[in-house]
Amino acid sequence: MARGPFAGVLAPVLTPFNADLSVDSARFVGFAKDLLGHGCSALVPFGTTSEATSLSLDERLELLTALREAEVPGHKLLPGVGLPNLPETVRLTRAAVNHGCGGVLLPPPFFYKNVSDAGLYDFVRELIQRVGDDRLRLYLYHIPGQAGIGWSPALVERLFTDFPETVVGLKDSGGDWSYTRDLLHKHPGFSVFVGNEHYLRDALELRGAGTITASANVNPHLLNRLYECWGRSGGDELNEAVIAYRKALEAFPTIAGAKAVVARRTGHPGWTRVRPPLTSLPAEQANALLQKLNALEAFTAGAGRALGGR
Amino acid sequence: MARGPFAGVLAPVLTPFNADLSVDSARFVGFAKDLLGHGCSALVPFGTTSEATSLSLDERLELLTALREAEVPGHKLLPGVGLPNLPETVRLTRAAVNHGCGGVLLPPPFFYKNVSDAGLYDFVRELIQRVGDDRLRLYLYHIPGQAGIGWSPALVERLFTDFPETVVGLKDSGGDWSYTRDLLHKHPGFSVFVGNEHYLRDALELRGAGTITASANVNPHLLNRLYECWGRSGGDELNEAVIAYRKALEAFPTIAGAKAVVARRTGHPGWTRVRPPLTSLPAEQANALLQKLNALEAFTAGAGRALGGR
Repeated sequence: MARGPFAGVLAPVLTPFNADLSVDSARFVGFAKDLLGHGCSALVPFGTTSEATSLSLDERLELLTALREAEVPGHKLLPGVGLPNLPETVRLTRAAVNHGCGGVLLPPPFFYKNVSDAGLYDFVRELIQRVGDDRLRLYLYHIPGQAGIGWSPALVERLFTDFPETVVGLKDSGGDWSYTRDLLHKHPGFSVFVGNEHYLRDALELRGAGTITASANVNPHLLNRLYECWGRSGGDELNEAVIAYRKALEAFPTIAGAKAVVARRTGHPGWTRVRPPLTSLPAEQANALLQKLNALEAFTAGAGRALGGR
Repeated sequence: MARGPFAGVLAPVLTPFNADLSVDSARFVGFAKDLLGHGCSALVPFGTTSEATSLSLDERLELLTALREAEVPGHKLLPGVGLPNLPETVRLTRAAVNHGCGGVLLPPPFFYKNVSDAGLYDFVRELIQRVGDDRLRLYLYHIPGQAGIGWSPALVERLFTDFPETVVGLKDSGGDWSYTRDLLHKHPGFSVFVGNEHYLRDALELRGAGTITASANVNPHLLNRLYECWGRSGGDELNEAVIAYRKALEAFPTIAGAKAVVARRTGHPGWTRVRPPLTSLPAEQANALLQKLNALEAFTAGAGRALGGR
């Protein structure tokens, strides 16, 4: 079983839109590069937080090209390839491999419910065979709350066993710590990322690979310090700060909330736009969120000092 | 509020695949034409039963072109336009309008959960504005079991009110008769199709428009007789026959089961193929299903005679 190439704090990069709701590609690339400079070890374009399913396949392909043309290194890219059908999943995955991406993040095809493990296995096997490239590294994306189906422990084990050089990790957004814990115990060589930093320190204690989390769009530096320092003195305080930040974000719709934060910080109001069916955060909610985050800053700075942070 | 252009029994047309899982376009078109000759008043290519979400956008566009090139009349086509993102939904809908299709069937964008009515309203409004064609007729597709979200009664009313010439009907696959009944009572001019013939007669009594049902792929003639004769003497027996047929189909995964039936009837084993994540019906289950359906035939023929059916 291969250990996957990614570790640390990865951001599912927010996607900015122009006034006509087209993708603001230049701003997306600039923001992605900023995240790499502020604590993210790598990027997940086209995650759930990126509104990936609200983008067309062509838009995703164009953004991937734009990132590479802007010299974002392929090994720092783990694009999401969540699509409900096989041919388009193959197409996007093949493009990612050809762009030199370190891996792809694969949710189960997400329309049909009560799908069997055998059917999901067939989907992954067909994907791997059709892409047909030894460079492919697949991370399973477990997000049953949105997909309505998930990667069962038995299926995960079967995929690891049958494709040990290709299926190298999993992002767990299931919110069930026992699922994460059992995976970490059972497959120590496997790269498990938590989708929520509530579980980050617990996962790191069991050799977890890190986190892929919406918060990394707005709080990458603090998350990265927790990742780097979790075992040291002061780690408790830092962990509390990270979790307090997350709780503040979670009190509102997360994607719209994160975009509202970026809009205020960058001074570009266009960041608040989301594509339907999502809706932007109303101004009074955005104000309440920003107030909460500002109130956390003294606390956060304190945690940084305790650890001798930069 | 406009009454929609469709009525009767509509089939969400099954999609046949070649051995490499590519679409068997010629067989699809031939099967679609057969359905029109055997009791279906119109067709729904790219419904749930068609494995629409397992097809790429390009495949759907090509099949639509193939149907029209084979002279299937546009006014007999109500293609599904279920995609989780706006740009591709616009593209497929615009193609359908330009092909002269009588309408399109629109599920809500189906990845995000806990989506607000306001966000879904924005999605539909943007779709209508971007297609920008007076010929567009939209049927909402209510299928919360698969989509994870649905069209709430309040949202349906708002859409009917704001787009009275465009939003003209709804297919109800929610399985909750009170939802269907309330819609029929409240909006008598609206074209409501039931997604399951369990409720067909009840809906017709309230001026329902008919049914769009998986069973129409294998049982169109009997369904059409029920639609045409539901109020007459003998209707009870016919209704029982239709429901018994449906129950037999529902005892197995419906899409794979319907394909197994078509495979046996046509003698083309390729019909049994489904795309992952679905799986074909194992042979023993296909045998059990066929036996059940055969056992129903005497009963069915009796119901036909009682009504002087052909």
